[in-house]
Amino acid sequence: TFFFFTQLNGRFLGGKVRFSFMENPGYCSGSFDGLHHPSDDDDDDDEMVDIAGATLDFSTTDDVPPLSSGGYDEYSSSSRAGMNGGGPKKLVDLLEDPLPGVGTYEDFNTIDWVREKSKDRDRHREVPDTKTCFFLFCVLLLALNAPSSPPGALAGGIDIAAHWLTDLKGGVCLIGFWFNHEHCCWTSNETTFQERDRCPQWQSWAELIVGNSEGAFAYIVNYLMYIFWALLFAFLAVILVRAFAPYACGSGIPEIKTILSGFIIRGYLGKWTLITKTITLVLAVSSGLSLGKEGPLVHVACCCANILCHLFTKYRKNEAKRREVLSAAAAVGVSVAFGAPIGGVLFSLEEVSYYFPLKTLWRSFFAALVAAFTLRSINPFGNSRLVLFYVEFHAPWHLIELAPFILLGIFGGLWGALFIRANIAWCRRRKTTRLGHYPVIEVLVVAALTALIAYPNSYTRMSGSELISELFNDCSLLDSSQLCGYKQPVNVSETGVGNSLADRPAGEGLYTALWQLALALIFKMLITVITFGMKVPSGLFIPSMAVGAIAGRLLGVGMEQLAYYNHDWLIFRGWCSPGADCITPGLYAMVGAAACLGGVTRMTVSLVVIMFELTGGLEYIVPLMAATMTSKWVADAFGREGIYEAHIRLNGYPFLEAKEEFEHSSLAVDVMRPRRGDPALAVLTQDSMTVEEVETVVDSTHYSGFPVVVSQESQRLVGFVLRRDLLISIDNARKRQDGVVSTSQVVFTEHAPTQPPEAPPPLRLRGIMDLSPFTVTDHTPMDITVDIFRKLGLRQCLVTHNGRLLGIITKKDILKHMAQIANRDPDSILFN
Amino acid sequence: TFFFFTQLNGRFLGGKVRFSFMENPGYCSGSFDGLHHPSDDDDDDDEMVDIAGATLDFSTTDDVPPLSSGGYDEYSSSSRAGMNGGGPKKLVDLLEDPLPGVGTYEDFNTIDWVREKSKDRDRHREVPDTKTCFFLFCVLLLALNAPSSPPGALAGGIDIAAHWLTDLKGGVCLIGFWFNHEHCCWTSNETTFQERDRCPQWQSWAELIVGNSEGAFAYIVNYLMYIFWALLFAFLAVILVRAFAPYACGSGIPEIKTILSGFIIRGYLGKWTLITKTITLVLAVSSGLSLGKEGPLVHVACCCANILCHLFTKYRKNEAKRREVLSAAAAVGVSVAFGAPIGGVLFSLEEVSYYFPLKTLWRSFFAALVAAFTLRSINPFGNSRLVLFYVEFHAPWHLIELAPFILLGIFGGLWGALFIRANIAWCRRRKTTRLGHYPVIEVLVVAALTALIAYPNSYTRMSGSELISELFNDCSLLDSSQLCGYKQPVNVSETGVGNSLADRPAGEGLYTALWQLALALIFKMLITVITFGMKVPSGLFIPSMAVGAIAGRLLGVGMEQLAYYNHDWLIFRGWCSPGADCITPGLYAMVGAAACLGGVTRMTVSLVVIMFELTGGLEYIVPLMAATMTSKWVADAFGREGIYEAHIRLNGYPFLEAKEEFEHSSLAVDVMRPRRGDPALAVLTQDSMTVEEVETVVDSTHYSGFPVVVSQESQRLVGFVLRRDLLISIDNARKRQDGVVSTSQVVFTEHAPTQPPEAPPPLRLRGIMDLSPFTVTDHTPMDITVDIFRKLGLRQCLVTHNGRLLGIITKKDILKHMAQIANRDPDSILFN
Repeated sequence: TFFFFTQLNGRFLGGKVRFSFMENPGYCSGSFDGLHHPSDDDDDDDEMVDIAGATLDFSTTDDVPPLSSGGYDEYSSSSRAGMNGGGPKKLVDLLEDPLPGVGTYEDFNTIDWVREKSKDRDRHREVPDTKTCFFLFCVLLLALNAPSSPPGALAGGIDIAAHWLTDLKGGVCLIGFWFNHEHCCWTSNETTFQERDRCPQWQSWAELIVGNSEGAFAYIVNYLMYIFWALLFAFLAVILVRAFAPYACGSGIPEIKTILSGFIIRGYLGKWTLITKTITLVLAVSSGLSLGKEGPLVHVACCCANILCHLFTKYRKNEAKRREVLSAAAAVGVSVAFGAPIGGVLFSLEEVSYYFPLKTLWRSFFAALVAAFTLRSINPFGNSRLVLFYVEFHAPWHLIELAPFILLGIFGGLWGALFIRANIAWCRRRKTTRLGHYPVIEVLVVAALTALIAYPNSYTRMSGSELISELFNDCSLLDSSQLCGYKQPVNVSETGVGNSLADRPAGEGLYTALWQLALALIFKMLITVITFGMKVPSGLFIPSMAVGAIAGRLLGVGMEQLAYYNHDWLIFRGWCSPGADCITPGLYAMVGAAACLGGVTRMTVSLVVIMFELTGGLEYIVPLMAATMTSKWVADAFGREGIYEAHIRLNGYPFLEAKEEFEHSSLAVDVMRPRRGDPALAVLTQDSMTVEEVETVVDSTHYSGFPVVVSQESQRLVGFVLRRDLLISIDNARKRQDGVVSTSQVVFTEHAPTQPPEAPPPLRLRGIMDLSPFTVTDHTPMDITVDIFRKLGLRQCLVTHNGRLLGIITKKDILKHMAQIANRDPDSILFN
Repeated sequence: TFFFFTQLNGRFLGGKVRFSFMENPGYCSGSFDGLHHPSDDDDDDDEMVDIAGATLDFSTTDDVPPLSSGGYDEYSSSSRAGMNGGGPKKLVDLLEDPLPGVGTYEDFNTIDWVREKSKDRDRHREVPDTKTCFFLFCVLLLALNAPSSPPGALAGGIDIAAHWLTDLKGGVCLIGFWFNHEHCCWTSNETTFQERDRCPQWQSWAELIVGNSEGAFAYIVNYLMYIFWALLFAFLAVILVRAFAPYACGSGIPEIKTILSGFIIRGYLGKWTLITKTITLVLAVSSGLSLGKEGPLVHVACCCANILCHLFTKYRKNEAKRREVLSAAAAVGVSVAFGAPIGGVLFSLEEVSYYFPLKTLWRSFFAALVAAFTLRSINPFGNSRLVLFYVEFHAPWHLIELAPFILLGIFGGLWGALFIRANIAWCRRRKTTRLGHYPVIEVLVVAALTALIAYPNSYTRMSGSELISELFNDCSLLDSSQLCGYKQPVNVSETGVGNSLADRPAGEGLYTALWQLALALIFKMLITVITFGMKVPSGLFIPSMAVGAIAGRLLGVGMEQLAYYNHDWLIFRGWCSPGADCITPGLYAMVGAAACLGGVTRMTVSLVVIMFELTGGLEYIVPLMAATMTSKWVADAFGREGIYEAHIRLNGYPFLEAKEEFEHSSLAVDVMRPRRGDPALAVLTQDSMTVEEVETVVDSTHYSGFPVVVSQESQRLVGFVLRRDLLISIDNARKRQDGVVSTSQVVFTEHAPTQPPEAPPPLRLRGIMDLSPFTVTDHTPMDITVDIFRKLGLRQCLVTHNGRLLGIITKKDILKHMAQIANRDPDSILFN
């Protein structure tokens, strides 16, 4: 840690001057379009994306030598001895062991699952039994016992640090500034909780500066100090993100979804991102901005998994295998964030993962088991339970209450849909207007605004999870919080203890609390829209849940008072007699939280499981389900996309949504390139082209791959060869292999055709050709083609007609086609 | 109901004489091989399976007219008017509206998901918006409120009837024979539960017959009556199954898995199966056989869903759509069986469903929501909870206890693996030896044996769920059951109430209970092996859980006593001091139950969720996870298959396991037909064959489909046409269409080739041709091919080489290949 901070300081101080507040706006959800210039011609669907500027130099998990770097020179030299003999022998060498670099990917490109799978199969045959061991070891390292479990330990560390910094905004501990409020007063000998909160060891800033904790002046001092700290933390967070890892901003879940669907974003899961995100997450949460740490923890867990995977050849070399581990890591992330192992697995299944075979299910389950075990040993919530917001309600719910629960579902759905629209509009504005050029100023302004408005209201001043915890809680007779400011029943002695939980009329305290909550609700609803998407790590779980919990609590209290004053109404008769404990406002808060989170993310099963793992409320499955379902329906009516899909589309990632069905009647022939009238597809022939001709074809097009056919006349498909592999191989052959010149024949067949003796030796490239390219016929309906792309994770697919090659369909073509159908701009799909 | 019984009686009495105990052994897991005669030649992989004898006449949900029945005659006549004109017009008619029967499936055939999907797409375009409505209506009908919810109501009815019949084995209620023991004594004015159990209204058979409830003679009378009733119920169950629905036997889950993977078993989900299964399930459970009702309830729920689906054209016509509903129904089945909605969804996902898109996930979720709601309104467990075995443990578990939990996991895994081996060996014996010829006698013998051994031991005499409930329960001080026969602490007054739950030394009652439990364990372990697979409805959940619960309870009590006598041991020090309540034997029973069920079924996530929904023990996720995981690992070491997969394989269904990876290096060319040296693949040409030539090709082969190529020389693939569709179309054309004779040309192209004017009009069949057949190249590795088959649900796939058609791979070919690799008999795969 010491080394890290030194290095960090060095970098930070050295780099400070460089960062004006205007440069390099193109990171985070604002994204890469500043760096990417779509060409104007129509068939640019396969161009190489040049966004080197955005990836910076932190991509430590890359093991792929860039094209024509010295990566494979070494290999070639070492095997050169066997290559000098000339004739078939040296060629065989080239075929047997592929060159380094062959079979790897460029940044911002889509992987081909099928190809990766067969790579794994080859590798698997070499080392058959280490597979499971490696995986288990990786997962164990990933999530084993507390100190060795990176996500667990990081989550714990983030928790503690965020607590401390949040408390620092209010005051400081005299016996040691590194204690937070609770720990500072731990040893205090005050008896009640309230008294203990005001222990003399903990001094508010006003006490420290002006020596007085009461009065308007002290309040103003505290207020100013609160704003000062909030601004400082926010500034540090945004500056660190800008300086060290632009990818550390946002929640990370949209990008992880894209990566898991088979996309390469170099450095997104690298160690710099991990370190920066961890630190800035603490700062951002502490600054009081309306954001949570749960979403980013998924990113942090994936970073850990990716770095650990890097230790093993199998996962380093195989993008598909690595994604299986990342799916498990996403489960671990939610597991450590909420203490919800099963919910984590389901979250990974329903929301994050794209390709989730049953094997991954039980591996994720195992990882989540170990994470849950870790969590239990470090006991972060201090109640020896696996539960973050433990609630215990006394009364069962009544069927009639389903009506308000569904009402909450409608509210959640409406809010979710509105939030997504507003947030996307705001983020688009950030991308397209000058707003995006001042990310640091934006963060500072929002932080100042948040602090300014939040401080006077105690419900916005406290952190999101504290607020939720308080709203979920049921009032007991001794509860002193404002929310429980009911009028005490006059005849306590008569009703006795058993009725202490009975419905009571609201007192003044409660009315004040309700007003404050209503204001907090409006504030949270507005500020979250502009907060999510800023250049700091920001999760959406806690703010959404807070909005829902406030709304739910308000409705719950309303229902309670309604029932209290109208026991004789038909709907209350029978189950809500005077003196009975019939309506639990805390339950309404819980249902409201689920509804709002469901509206924003469109989760269903995983959300319900997370909610009841979070609260321990197994008996409230039906209310939670009803609210979540309603919320999803209502929100879907306004737009099918959840917030994560919306951000994916905003950023133009090539993500083929697995949830929605393609419902248009087009055929493969309508989508494929070349279109009617365009020049024919650039193809290579299997044994009649020279090196020079091949190079001409490659140079004159932007395609990332070329079909190989028997002959130009027959157009019978033999295989598919990737541009990258082709270039590396030709380059290597020219440099190393004796005799290969521009007039050498390029041969993709198994046996070289007989040639005149004076001809130069042929360049045999069957080894780099994919012998099993995917084909569909031109009459294949697009919905089936889309299904194939989704399920098999294809990158491209060739189109044939009566056995003749006709064209090609890439993932980008499909996405463009879908955008066109939905009347969106097809050019918003940036990457291939 | 009256009508049904009348009809039943009529059928029963009328049919009684026919049923000798030897005829027709070929049903249930014993299966169809008696009726299926594999031909001897090698290329019989596509033959029509003739098992009409086994399906009987109850297949009321079939809407597909059998081949060349009058099904489409009617249609043809009605549209005949437009067909008399001759020339292209009448042909267009034929192309536009496919004949009835075209596009449907034979019994015991595999469906083609891709084809079904595109069918749905076409239909979907016609009626775009009714889709969701229909689905929702179907699901609502399926699982809405109590009286209208078939699975819910049936589950409730089964529960009540089984209770009554089980109690009837012990005695009868004098105030009304239709009361069960509990209801009979409901109004009794005895105070304690024990006294109430012996209320005078309830008379044991001994009291009724010999007027004496004590003494050896009374015991023998009760014993004999118990055996008599058990035999009667078992006899009725097996006779009803034989007479009305052979498919009603077994748990049904293996067959439902197969059906969901895309297989046709006519009548398996029909109304006769539903009725018979419901009634015989009650009888089988009541007879005291070692079987549960949870698995069959999944079958019952699927029957309900299938019958309901039949009301809607969309689901009746489309096999793929129907399977989505069935997936949801499986979730509902578990949901109503255990009161575990989330567990049900996960069970459907992990264990039953094959093709489970996210859309189905949330639809299942909705169905389970409604089912949970139903369950809550009918309140079947009488505790206003959604929980079957509600437990509340007082002490948290300690980390050290993970060791015994893992031990239980190992036991569960071992038992699971052993059980599967023994059960499969027994079932195979039943299939191959004369044992299978006497199903009724077998059931009677096993029932007699069970009753004979079970009666003397109180733990085997009670029903499985009662036993589990008792074993899960924690002992309180007042508990009077034998299992809680601890020695009372001598100094009760000193220790007070707080320590009433402390560890206590075992008393005599407990020792007796332990002995009885140990005997019950051995008995259950043995008898379940021969019970599962008999010709009565039989689930495996409850017996497996019972075995595990007994083992767990034994270990738990052992640990408890160990801790009591050795408080000073290192492992107990610190958390298990004298007088503390440290070890909960009930928790061990719960963990053991999960471990054994996991070992048998190999479920992981769903099992843990079911267990904690079943018991409400959210805090015990980690122990449950640890035991389940261990159990799965241990069991997998002995054999990768769960009990359901093992039974699928035993029955020879074409089920391509999605969980296991294909790990062999063969290529598509190694698996495809024709093999090297075999005659070339039978193909049709697109425009150069006459009707007679086509008929010759069709008649001379058994293939269920034929590729269409441009010409015999080029072998360029155009499309694929199914035998069934071809026969129906030619048959229809010959009968109805003027001018089509044997010398007519069969044309698959869009435009008929120019012909000499004297030639008969061509038969245009492009409409029945699949224009987008799946192709892979001959070099495609088999693991990728298997992956494609699994993910896309293909029935067959064509193999090409350099654009030329080379061969075909069917699902059966793949399964045979896999069997060959695993050194199993490839001919065990019976169906295509």
